[in-house]
Amino acid sequence: MNFASDNAYGAHPAVLQALIDCNEGAVMGYGADPVSARATAAIRDIFEAPDAEVHFVATGTAANALVCAQLSPGFGRIYCHEDAHIETSECGAPEFFTGGGKLITLAGAMGKLNAGHLQEALRIGAAEGWNGGRNAMLSITNSTEWGTVYTPQEVAALSRISHDAGLPVHMDGARFANAIASLGCRPADLTWRAGVDVLCFGGTKNGAMGAEAVIFFDPELAEGFAYRRKQSGHVFSKQRFLAAQMLALCENGLWTQLALQANAAATRLAEGVARAGGHFLAPVQSNAIFAAIPLAAHQRAVAAGAKYHLWPDASADGSDPVPVRLVTSWNTPDCQIDALVDLLCQGDGA
Amino acid sequence: MNFASDNAYGAHPAVLQALIDCNEGAVMGYGADPVSARATAAIRDIFEAPDAEVHFVATGTAANALVCAQLSPGFGRIYCHEDAHIETSECGAPEFFTGGGKLITLAGAMGKLNAGHLQEALRIGAAEGWNGGRNAMLSITNSTEWGTVYTPQEVAALSRISHDAGLPVHMDGARFANAIASLGCRPADLTWRAGVDVLCFGGTKNGAMGAEAVIFFDPELAEGFAYRRKQSGHVFSKQRFLAAQMLALCENGLWTQLALQANAAATRLAEGVARAGGHFLAPVQSNAIFAAIPLAAHQRAVAAGAKYHLWPDASADGSDPVPVRLVTSWNTPDCQIDALVDLLCQGDGA
Amino acid sequence: MNFASDNAYGAHPAVLQALIDCNEGAVMGYGADPVSARATAAIRDIFEAPDAEVHFVATGTAANALVCAQLSPGFGRIYCHEDAHIETSECGAPEFFTGGGKLITLAGAMGKLNAGHLQEALRIGAAEGWNGGRNAMLSITNSTEWGTVYTPQEVAALSRISHDAGLPVHMDGARFANAIASLGCRPADLTWRAGVDVLCFGGTKNGAMGAEAVIFFDPELAEGFAYRRKQSGHVFSKQRFLAAQMLALCENGLWTQLALQANAAATRLAEGVARAGGHFLAPVQSNAIFAAIPLAAHQRAVAAGAKYHLWPDASADGSDPVPVRLVTSWNTPDCQIDALVDLLCQGDGA
Amino acid sequence: MNFASDNAYGAHPAVLQALIDCNEGAVMGYGADPVSARATAAIRDIFEAPDAEVHFVATGTAANALVCAQLSPGFGRIYCHEDAHIETSECGAPEFFTGGGKLITLAGAMGKLNAGHLQEALRIGAAEGWNGGRNAMLSITNSTEWGTVYTPQEVAALSRISHDAGLPVHMDGARFANAIASLGCRPADLTWRAGVDVLCFGGTKNGAMGAEAVIFFDPELAEGFAYRRKQSGHVFSKQRFLAAQMLALCENGLWTQLALQANAAATRLAEGVARAGGHFLAPVQSNAIFAAIPLAAHQRAVAAGAKYHLWPDASADGSDPVPVRLVTSWNTPDCQIDALVDLLCQGDGA
Repeated sequence: MNFASDNAYGAHPAVLQALIDCNEGAVMGYGADPVSARATAAIRDIFEAPDAEVHFVATGTAANALVCAQLSPGFGRIYCHEDAHIETSECGAPEFFTGGGKLITLAGAMGKLNAGHLQEALRIGAAEGWNGGRNAMLSITNSTEWGTVYTPQEVAALSRISHDAGLPVHMDGARFANAIASLGCRPADLTWRAGVDVLCFGGTKNGAMGAEAVIFFDPELAEGFAYRRKQSGHVFSKQRFLAAQMLALCENGLWTQLALQANAAATRLAEGVARAGGHFLAPVQSNAIFAAIPLAAHQRAVAAGAKYHLWPDASADGSDPVPVRLVTSWNTPDCQIDALVDLLCQGDGA
Repeated sequence: MNFASDNAYGAHPAVLQALIDCNEGAVMGYGADPVSARATAAIRDIFEAPDAEVHFVATGTAANALVCAQLSPGFGRIYCHEDAHIETSECGAPEFFTGGGKLITLAGAMGKLNAGHLQEALRIGAAEGWNGGRNAMLSITNSTEWGTVYTPQEVAALSRISHDAGLPVHMDGARFANAIASLGCRPADLTWRAGVDVLCFGGTKNGAMGAEAVIFFDPELAEGFAYRRKQSGHVFSKQRFLAAQMLALCENGLWTQLALQANAAATRLAEGVARAGGHFLAPVQSNAIFAAIPLAAHQRAVAAGAKYHLWPDASADGSDPVPVRLVTSWNTPDCQIDALVDLLCQGDGA
Repeated sequence: MNFASDNAYGAHPAVLQALIDCNEGAVMGYGADPVSARATAAIRDIFEAPDAEVHFVATGTAANALVCAQLSPGFGRIYCHEDAHIETSECGAPEFFTGGGKLITLAGAMGKLNAGHLQEALRIGAAEGWNGGRNAMLSITNSTEWGTVYTPQEVAALSRISHDAGLPVHMDGARFANAIASLGCRPADLTWRAGVDVLCFGGTKNGAMGAEAVIFFDPELAEGFAYRRKQSGHVFSKQRFLAAQMLALCENGLWTQLALQANAAATRLAEGVARAGGHFLAPVQSNAIFAAIPLAAHQRAVAAGAKYHLWPDASADGSDPVPVRLVTSWNTPDCQIDALVDLLCQGDGA
Repeated sequence: MNFASDNAYGAHPAVLQALIDCNEGAVMGYGADPVSARATAAIRDIFEAPDAEVHFVATGTAANALVCAQLSPGFGRIYCHEDAHIETSECGAPEFFTGGGKLITLAGAMGKLNAGHLQEALRIGAAEGWNGGRNAMLSITNSTEWGTVYTPQEVAALSRISHDAGLPVHMDGARFANAIASLGCRPADLTWRAGVDVLCFGGTKNGAMGAEAVIFFDPELAEGFAYRRKQSGHVFSKQRFLAAQMLALCENGLWTQLALQANAAATRLAEGVARAGGHFLAPVQSNAIFAAIPLAAHQRAVAAGAKYHLWPDASADGSDPVPVRLVTSWNTPDCQIDALVDLLCQGDGA
């Protein structure tokens, strides 16, 4: 019963098969191979962006931090939510890759930035002069770190504010597929048509072994990015194995299918959490559940070996109810969901 | 009528004379000169620290950021007040010099860190694992960015918490002299005896042209610092001119005398601000006043050419009362203080 | 007929099978999984180093640059051969990761450092003072970028000089397996017993998809390395897939078997090159051949689609004979070797 | 008898007087003061460049490294002479400030780059792909580290090659005044009219305490530079004291007068060195002499307390003749020159 993260599960069989399929023979390394070309084409198709420049890396932190370095100078101010992955979970990677960039974090209910707050923050930042650095970029996460989902309209509103201030927009899409699965909209509508300049399109949490695509919808913004990737050790000599993972996900719509499965698993689990007396801290819109559950239920689950994180951190331990984060994946078995729900509800019949 | 900053005023005549005095003849460059040796000795005397390692740089940002790089790796968490100069006013210098360090800012009334909050923050940080980086150092400012002053006991309490967590303690002493002048205690009591490992001892705001001393009370902490200084362009070939400034301040107690003057000017001004109906946002303990003054008084002052900053930023403009920061220096003329007070009070007689 | 690089070929079937084998079920991410533990144990066994600290990354540039950052401060001097991969082929990664480290390159016949030259260079470097930075580390590559191999005695001689100067020793072992296959010695004898402190043990060029192990024989040298890896985006959430690759190579001696195959392929090819009138620029000791071949032979080969690099760069094009680099891999088919040799020799019968 | 460096001597009295003159009263800090404006105007006049953007910093290393960071990304290749100050004497500052830039050093007789070699090196660099980084900028020093001087024609030839390759041109002008004094040409002819995009115009070695001006002839190249300067701690709060130094030198032609004095002192000394049997390693064109002098003469000079450097480093000690570097300054007394010459020649009469 592992609900710790969607990366707790392995890779989809189609991804592994793609590795085997592309393994034959010798090809030129570093991306000059046919699989890389096909994966790029598949991504351009999905995003209706025939000119997009696409780069493959193996980790989400690499993808995000490299884009920060591409869009912000060392003296830049990078605006993001206070719970953004780039702020909380990348060990200072954006600061390191940019050469000193400063993350300006904004509060916002349930993982989402508020347009008014952003506008005000950009205004203050612009007035900073050199003391506080220079406004450089906006980064938003979709689906968010709270499992909520920005609509195209919400993304467009934030992008407009950012562009009006002269700043490009980055979307951390480690769980972009879950957002699409939730909204049912076109990928282009949630990205470049809504003003997103660069998307980190996650594969790892959605069935890849370790693969992300950095998509520059405006190829001019990608100037020099290949060097940056190389200098940080994020170019694979046998790049076909990165590209093949993304290709397997992107061909035949596997990526949305897997995200739908992960979201459906969350819905199933959420129903059980509700039955168990859980109180939701955020609406369940993708594949993550944030809820306060009765302490006794939590203790039964943990005792039975269930794995998940307290929220926002372990200091929540012992409170009643106890706030938790439960993440489902494309591969979380229904039986494990049901087993967890049974544990959570068990005390009710007594 | 300039109350914008204590660096609005020039250098003390004794500092300029010291430049002239040390100008004669050829000496070896880069610190191997007799003036540098004398300045180091004078500082060791003041701090009763015969083994301290002393480095001279020209700006406070250089001093602070170099110390951050010395005490924190790129993946380090640097704890400081949310209004700390290293956070608000150095354009990301600590992040740049450390190679990506993350400033963890804590709220705290009137510019001072709260010991309990610090302890809790360090506990959370230690539990971060690599996601959030590793606890690296504590930085405190004395006198603070709000003009308040930590006592030796308060410094010792914060240092103890930091040391208990294995972290060294940096003091940003851009206005250290003002703190000493306010407290009347021994410099050693406010620094190494209270657990401070490294002090950036400011000269610039206290009558120098541009000179700060970085003092490592434990010389082992300074390992390699000379290279770091050189690599960042902060080694002067004609270092005697940096050292001479600090020497002029440190010999004969000029540094405390100037700070007493600056503090006294603030006291004089504060009395006037009170008479003008100002409401103090923080106790006036050194050479800075934070007060909300009647809008009409503010408008009269500005119209007459008085210069000072709204607080925390220009967005306060138009409110009534209007929050302002007024900084005095060793050289602020009494007549200008009185002139400002007259302007602020003018409406009263009407 | 691809002799461009040993990374032109794919992954060994056992490596792919290992990915499938470890794919089942949910495990904790980021290295806290059983496959990572087994791979670490296997590596410790191979190197007779039960206390070694082992980290897995996906690329050789990441491995090398992270180690440079671990062993050298930003102001460090990193000694290496002028043809070292860290100098010629990593786009400044060591400089970036260290925060400004300077590579001090030394000439040396056929890719190997000369002990006397190293000693002299270290002496000069130590006398630099801060102008030139501080001596920080030695990096040697085995097998070298010229396909030659350092013996344990040669490694020990260089290590001794480095250690005598207080510097740790890094070995870039992207083709370490080929060196072992060539020498037939114990891995421990070629590394820590010969004074190597940290080895980047390559998997990618030896049958992995993309996997390298950074081995700290002295775990104290690894202090903080996990954070460094994370901050640069080189931690895989699903790390089992990195570890499984190394495990597949390390269990049952596959890694040496594959290297023996690659070396044997080079020997087979070298015989043909000799027959074709090629003149060897370096002895063929591992899986790379450096030779000057008749221009006509070269032109026939290229016309027939053979792929390999001119040496040291494309400017050699048109000279007669033309210097080339031919690299074989564990998977280079004998028939392709023979086909290339036939092309090279073809004119002889005319 | 100090001939170690032109920074061994102090500041010109006019520079010190300028500090006193600008000391009165309160002004806004960080460059918004009238002295900064006047110094900028004076420099624009000298260079016939009314639109140039001018920044003041205190050290030559800061000036050079900041310009490198401005013109080169972290993955950039920076072309310079192998004896360039940025390569030999800045402790890796360019690498640090750029975030990993690589200095590509070229040999060249007597400190000067050869146009043909540069062209070939740029060609090779352009072919590197990402392995070796991307061609980014050219840096030349005038007068050179060997005391020789590039003519406007020579600068123009190098600039043309650089510009043809798309690279901007930086001139390290720590001793630019000495070059102008030597050539007698217009500063504009030796800089922007000859293709120089950015000049680091040195004051420190020419009579300032510590002041350099970074001059962007194309202000667009300066975009964001103020932030960069701030983030590296190179903004002075009391900037008037930096600007005043440059103003003192630039008004009334003092800067060329002092350089003429320094050059004349070198000429006087060179005549003596010739009389003492010295063999010149480079023509004496500015204020530095590189010569091999009889060992006995050297030993007499050292025994009498003369200070200067062996060349290229102390390892030359003991050879006969012994290669030395002798540097004169605007303030080197004739009597000391004559005293040194007497020592060198002393043995002749015996």
